Amino acid sequence: MAKKERPAAQSDGRNRVVIERMDPRIDCGRFPIKRVVGEPVTVEADVFADGHDAISGLLLHRHIRDEEWAESAIEHIGNDRWRGTFQVLKLGEYEYSIQAWIDHFKTWRRDLRKRLDAGQVEPADVQMGAELIDAASGRASGADKKALADWASSLATIPNRLEAANLALSAELAAIMDRYPDRSLATTAGERLRVVVERERARFSSWYEFFPRSCTPDASRHATLADCVSILPYVAGMGFDVFYLPPVHPVGRTHRKGKNNTLVPARKDPGSPWAIGADTGGHTALNPDLGTLEQFDQFVAEAAQSGLEVALDIAFQCSPDHPYVKAHPEWFQHRPDGAIQYAENPPKKYEDIYPFNFETSDWKALWEELRDVFLFWVDHGVRIFRVDNPHTKPFAFWEWVISEIRQRNPGVIFLSEAFTRPKVMYRLAKAGFSQSYTYFPWRNTSWELRQYHDVVTRGEIAEYFRPNSWPNTPDILPEYLQTGGRPAFMTRLVLAATLTANYGIYGPAFELVENVPREPGSEEYLDSEKYEIRARLADIEKPGSLKDFVALINRIRRENPALQSDRNLVFHNADNPELICYSKRTHDFSNVILVVVNLDPHHVQSGWLDVNPRELGTSSQADYQAHDLISGGRYLFHGRNNFVVLDPSKAPAHVFRIRRRVRTEQDFEYYL
Amino acid sequence: MAKKERPAAQSDGRNRVVIERMDPRIDCGRFPIKRVVGEPVTVEADVFADGHDAISGLLLHRHIRDEEWAESAIEHIGNDRWRGTFQVLKLGEYEYSIQAWIDHFKTWRRDLRKRLDAGQVEPADVQMGAELIDAASGRASGADKKALADWASSLATIPNRLEAANLALSAELAAIMDRYPDRSLATTAGERLRVVVERERARFSSWYEFFPRSCTPDASRHATLADCVSILPYVAGMGFDVFYLPPVHPVGRTHRKGKNNTLVPARKDPGSPWAIGADTGGHTALNPDLGTLEQFDQFVAEAAQSGLEVALDIAFQCSPDHPYVKAHPEWFQHRPDGAIQYAENPPKKYEDIYPFNFETSDWKALWEELRDVFLFWVDHGVRIFRVDNPHTKPFAFWEWVISEIRQRNPGVIFLSEAFTRPKVMYRLAKAGFSQSYTYFPWRNTSWELRQYHDVVTRGEIAEYFRPNSWPNTPDILPEYLQTGGRPAFMTRLVLAATLTANYGIYGPAFELVENVPREPGSEEYLDSEKYEIRARLADIEKPGSLKDFVALINRIRRENPALQSDRNLVFHNADNPELICYSKRTHDFSNVILVVVNLDPHHVQSGWLDVNPRELGTSSQADYQAHDLISGGRYLFHGRNNFVVLDPSKAPAHVFRIRRRVRTEQDFEYYL
Repeated sequence: MAKKERPAAQSDGRNRVVIERMDPRIDCGRFPIKRVVGEPVTVEADVFADGHDAISGLLLHRHIRDEEWAESAIEHIGNDRWRGTFQVLKLGEYEYSIQAWIDHFKTWRRDLRKRLDAGQVEPADVQMGAELIDAASGRASGADKKALADWASSLATIPNRLEAANLALSAELAAIMDRYPDRSLATTAGERLRVVVERERARFSSWYEFFPRSCTPDASRHATLADCVSILPYVAGMGFDVFYLPPVHPVGRTHRKGKNNTLVPARKDPGSPWAIGADTGGHTALNPDLGTLEQFDQFVAEAAQSGLEVALDIAFQCSPDHPYVKAHPEWFQHRPDGAIQYAENPPKKYEDIYPFNFETSDWKALWEELRDVFLFWVDHGVRIFRVDNPHTKPFAFWEWVISEIRQRNPGVIFLSEAFTRPKVMYRLAKAGFSQSYTYFPWRNTSWELRQYHDVVTRGEIAEYFRPNSWPNTPDILPEYLQTGGRPAFMTRLVLAATLTANYGIYGPAFELVENVPREPGSEEYLDSEKYEIRARLADIEKPGSLKDFVALINRIRRENPALQSDRNLVFHNADNPELICYSKRTHDFSNVILVVVNLDPHHVQSGWLDVNPRELGTSSQADYQAHDLISGGRYLFHGRNNFVVLDPSKAPAHVFRIRRRVRTEQDFEYYL
Repeated sequence: MAKKERPAAQSDGRNRVVIERMDPRIDCGRFPIKRVVGEPVTVEADVFADGHDAISGLLLHRHIRDEEWAESAIEHIGNDRWRGTFQVLKLGEYEYSIQAWIDHFKTWRRDLRKRLDAGQVEPADVQMGAELIDAASGRASGADKKALADWASSLATIPNRLEAANLALSAELAAIMDRYPDRSLATTAGERLRVVVERERARFSSWYEFFPRSCTPDASRHATLADCVSILPYVAGMGFDVFYLPPVHPVGRTHRKGKNNTLVPARKDPGSPWAIGADTGGHTALNPDLGTLEQFDQFVAEAAQSGLEVALDIAFQCSPDHPYVKAHPEWFQHRPDGAIQYAENPPKKYEDIYPFNFETSDWKALWEELRDVFLFWVDHGVRIFRVDNPHTKPFAFWEWVISEIRQRNPGVIFLSEAFTRPKVMYRLAKAGFSQSYTYFPWRNTSWELRQYHDVVTRGEIAEYFRPNSWPNTPDILPEYLQTGGRPAFMTRLVLAATLTANYGIYGPAFELVENVPREPGSEEYLDSEKYEIRARLADIEKPGSLKDFVALINRIRRENPALQSDRNLVFHNADNPELICYSKRTHDFSNVILVVVNLDPHHVQSGWLDVNPRELGTSSQADYQAHDLISGGRYLFHGRNNFVVLDPSKAPAHVFRIRRRVRTEQDFEYYL
């Protein structure tokens, strides 16, 4: 059904239908919901009118670049709630609304049936229908027009009123009438809601963060992007699809940080890549030590060959040596003594960083310049940006800049690195970020993990916030990893990779189980790569790497569509608080994954699960197979309660594929 | 604080503060919330900005007839949520919003304190504050202007920076600065929300429904309104404040209904007052049998003398004899055979009633005519209307007509008699009805009563829906009353009168414990007053009347402000499902009522209550007195759990006033 009707404003007092509480809807329609190409959007609303007349309605949607609205059915699901679904097939933005009207023909037909049952049909009762059918004929064309006109005149002329009534109740007539409703007094919901459609990677991605300058067998030598080509097979072999580089720009000299964040760097210390800008350029330049822009382009292409998309880190801040400081002093805040205000969180000072002053009167030029930074890298083939500390720049800026980029290239994905208060993080997601860092690094217990993920994978929040879980980052070595040894790393990997469809690790620190903090109580890494070059080409050859385990988990993610969404996460109970249990499934139950993780990295833990069998597509009476995709083991489970034992020294988790069995003619057979 | 600032639209990218989820708010601000004169409106919103700067904000409100916005404080209550309160003092409509801005002075002051603690104050740090103070001086006037200028210059010139910093942190400076914030980049919430303010009776009222034609000692004589003056002391003596009359207009002759809704009336049968209109007039005429308009005016005045306000029943439908039928045939639907469509719900027919056709092309004239019906009776002193079946007329009509009446007289109260689907009932309340009939007549068990009243007295619904509970109406003699005898009537009276602040009874059928249905399974009264005259002046002398019990309950309601609101209703547990327990309290705990009702009219029931002592203003360790305002008995309660026994043959309910005791110097004393 694709017609030309457009939602119109109401002003006629005869529009009797009202439409309320249309969902999904973010902040009264202020922000769009999010989907990826191919996903359905299920829309509901309260739709009703005064009196007892029957109502019909439609779900309207269109891509904002389309002129015409597509229409699809809505159905009453009870308590005056109506529901319909459409699918988004193109990148960009769609809008949707609901239209509904009093359906006099449907009302008449319903009442005629009652009159017939009561033996009360009068000629005028039939005649009323004939008039409605005749009017529909006026709206129809071609064969339908004639068919309806014929129907109307038969009804008006058949002498036997019971025969006429039975004719009027035919399904064939109802089907034709359904195509020509009288929508002259239709109500269209006052709001047109929006959905931003991104590519699938916005929903499902596996990130590997890597310092390109460390792609060297020898820490005294700064690696180039040409060197980095050699590590692509290693990263691709682990099954990642996003290769994320910290900032690649020239690094400032003034107040450069030395090893372990010391204030006095050695001559050869490379500085923090987040202290952006030097005489060789700023945000649109490549650090000469990493090579040339041609090498950058080459690296992006080589990565793509390996199935890896390069993600760049965009950190909108400047070293004192950034060209902007001289060219646009008005973009920075000036202290009364004339100096430019460095970043600070009193009493802490970050003198190697100048934040932009977004309250500058020249804010429009600043916004445009920053937009052009993104566009520069888009021109160099980058389609994914990890944005550093977006919560220290205005929300209005993000909403504008993401929209500007998306208008040019709707396939660009933005990850928000905001570790701050929840409402600030949500607002950034509403403003347009595709994915968001989360509190996952600090959610360790079963209760914490469950409570947090229930919040971010359900309801309104799940319509715009896509969690991206990181067990570690260059800034965060959580205490759990510091103290839990190798099992802790395996546990956190499984959790990150199966709780949320987007996740990432900072490697090779992660797979090499690096867990020594700079000092007790700190979450900073000792000898952090933020401040020095590490010989990662040598490191990755070390024994004891978790790279095969990582590869296994990523393969499980790729092969099981249930793990590629967030909104399908359901927690189940276990009688041991050291165990966490949850499942994910595809809509049609063709793929069902049940995960059980031992959160205690030190001891064997066991307990009884209490799963909701309906979520697994089975029942509380049924046997089903739990096939552990990690160990390969197969267990016969029954109903709700099943016993598990997890030894962290072997594997701290089960990732079960649930295989239900079906009875065939002769014997049993397992679903695959 | 009353200033001239008006909420302004945002377009400057430097507006960094965002305001989200402002509450209370109905359907994204589409409808106003409701209050009565003198009540507070507590407004909350999420208010935050990027970064770490301090925020200040204000709650704005004004009566829509006022030019200027009043401003009051908002405070941060945690998790980026802010709250403020204003009071509505005038009838009509107010609007409210929130404004907030980055407070650079507050930020500077907070950081200066940290610098001071860390011994890191530099001259420029002090100087920055001096500049902010100087700028505030530019916004100030009079003594404040000079004081601020002096402060700025002292700070800029004091050689000792620690001394300067300490000066800058003075509370006096902060207080003056608070009055002159820089609001040039303030954000005002995009929505201006509205609150309709009614008079107190909209929130707290006790209705008595009475058929005026029955105010006779002899059923063969149609009483007049002049006769009705004699019953005013009886009704006022029971403590009611609204005297509600079914329609007072001429009654149609065509298809008039006889006794017990029969189709063939006797010559003297008076017909149903809801079959409105005859040759003597329609909705703006008085039934000549009831007297003249002068007598009507006189009756309204006499009622007022007795403390009773007259409420009229407005039923927008016509008997076939209504003058509109001839004068405005276009306002009705016509059947193909030329007849006007009578009301029907196939296969049932109501041939004595013609509904209006609100889809008429002449709808504007129809709306205006119906508005004028209200205005006619407003001109005759009526300020309360009970509207019959509003759910069979368009919502848009009600929204318009109530607004039209209120613009002329904001004191008019409308009660919606819609017994239909919940969303339809809520929508009518949103459209402007002051009070609404509820499902109370059919909520009998503890679970049903608790679940239903939790819904209608909390959250968004309680912001616009004021339940008015009726144990009976002329249309509804619930089965519980038919079977439960006198205790059932007492139980339902106590529930109606204490669960909700608005309630009513149809009398004297109620206090006379009339409980015989027309036939088994029917909720219609036998010999219903809808179709015949009853000799009520004789009836009320019958022994066994509950009138004294009704008077007692109404007195308890009047004397205890806790019972005059709905949003303060809290249920408590009891270990016997035949007992229901709930409390209401004033904001300051000066009046606390705890109600326990035995829902079983046949047996003594007893059980342990489990009350939340905090809701009673006491604690789980404390003794307190439960003073039964029905029996006069006083019980010493302790903490959460207390035992009660209720004998329905005596009194099926306790209405306790909770009296907490305070320890004085010498001994104990009870709060009154």
